[in-house]
Amino acid sequence: MAVAELCLFLLGTESPSVGKYLEPIIKVIKASGLKYHVCLMGTVVEGSVDEILELVKRCHETILNTGVKRVVINLKIDDRVDKPLTIEGKMGV
Amino acid sequence: MAVAELCLFLLGTESPSVGKYLEPIIKVIKASGLKYHVCLMGTVVEGSVDEILELVKRCHETILNTGVKRVVINLKIDDRVDKPLTIEGKMGV
Amino acid sequence: MAVAELCLFLLGTESPSVGKYLEPIIKVIKASGLKYHVCLMGTVVEGSVDEILELVKRCHETILNTGVKRVVINLKIDDRVDKPLTIEGKMGV
Amino acid sequence: MAVAELCLFLLGTESPSVGKYLEPIIKVIKASGLKYHVCLMGTVVEGSVDEILELVKRCHETILNTGVKRVVINLKIDDRVDKPLTIEGKMGV
Repeated sequence: MAVAELCLFLLGTESPSVGKYLEPIIKVIKASGLKYHVCLMGTVVEGSVDEILELVKRCHETILNTGVKRVVINLKIDDRVDKPLTIEGKMGV
Repeated sequence: MAVAELCLFLLGTESPSVGKYLEPIIKVIKASGLKYHVCLMGTVVEGSVDEILELVKRCHETILNTGVKRVVINLKIDDRVDKPLTIEGKMGV
Repeated sequence: MAVAELCLFLLGTESPSVGKYLEPIIKVIKASGLKYHVCLMGTVVEGSVDEILELVKRCHETILNTGVKRVVINLKIDDRVDKPLTIEGKMGV
Repeated sequence: MAVAELCLFLLGTESPSVGKYLEPIIKVIKASGLKYHVCLMGTVVEGSVDEILELVKRCHETILNTGVKRVVINLKIDDRVDKPLTIEGKMGV
């Protein structure tokens, strides 16, 4: 199990406010069934690396369907083999 | 006012668990007096860019004083001039 | 076509020098057939988002097979629909 | 001596092409006198952490002077105490 932070930077949207473009992204994350937590600088999800990368793929498709012409997807995946890594575990830190 | 996420990757610590090295960092952040929020993949702080960079400097000094031999400091600063940017504002998104 | 930067932070290694663990990663990237460029703070690859995510998956498997106990995969994917995005194009900037 | 990668994401520009806004940034980096290397997904500079953070401050001021309304500054600083870290050293990896 890994924990990842996903953050999308949208370029060329004319307005610096991009919340409306990110609403469908949160829906995709919700629909994935993965445990997630909307943080201040990105959304954190918990899952296998395969599940996380599959989610990134769907978020990429979704954001480009909103009419955004350019996106930089920023992804940090934390994974370890010596002990379980979960959102709850990280919250306890 | 800007909002930034600070995340430190510590290399060469022998154990993959690095929580003990990060405790003094949280103390430095607390002592800065800046508004902050410990998130799952980093700590988010609110302040002027000068205040944030000053805090990064102190965190860098502090982490190397813990005996860590190599650190990668990962910093994302979000700043805008068209409207205020605050931790509360981002929480409302 | 997208351009991505992949950077792996290896936590818990005995030494802060991690070059030996990254050699098999470069082999995996070479074997992918994708155009790539080893930069100073990560390796940049060019491909479809699917190809890039598939490569990330293989790099994840490979790095954990080297005995590393914890890895933070840092990925930035730049993609746009209004004009082609290539390594050569970015070099010309 | 540390080595850092600086990358600016400009939000709210009319076009997804942002090269023209980044030209003054390269001038500021040049004028800093620090060793630098324009890479594909950011510009890598070599210097003390103080020099790097000072440069980030000037880049922040400069980018907002170009009329950009929102910027996300993405900074990765790699620093170690066990042996020197330089752009040449990283190139030899």
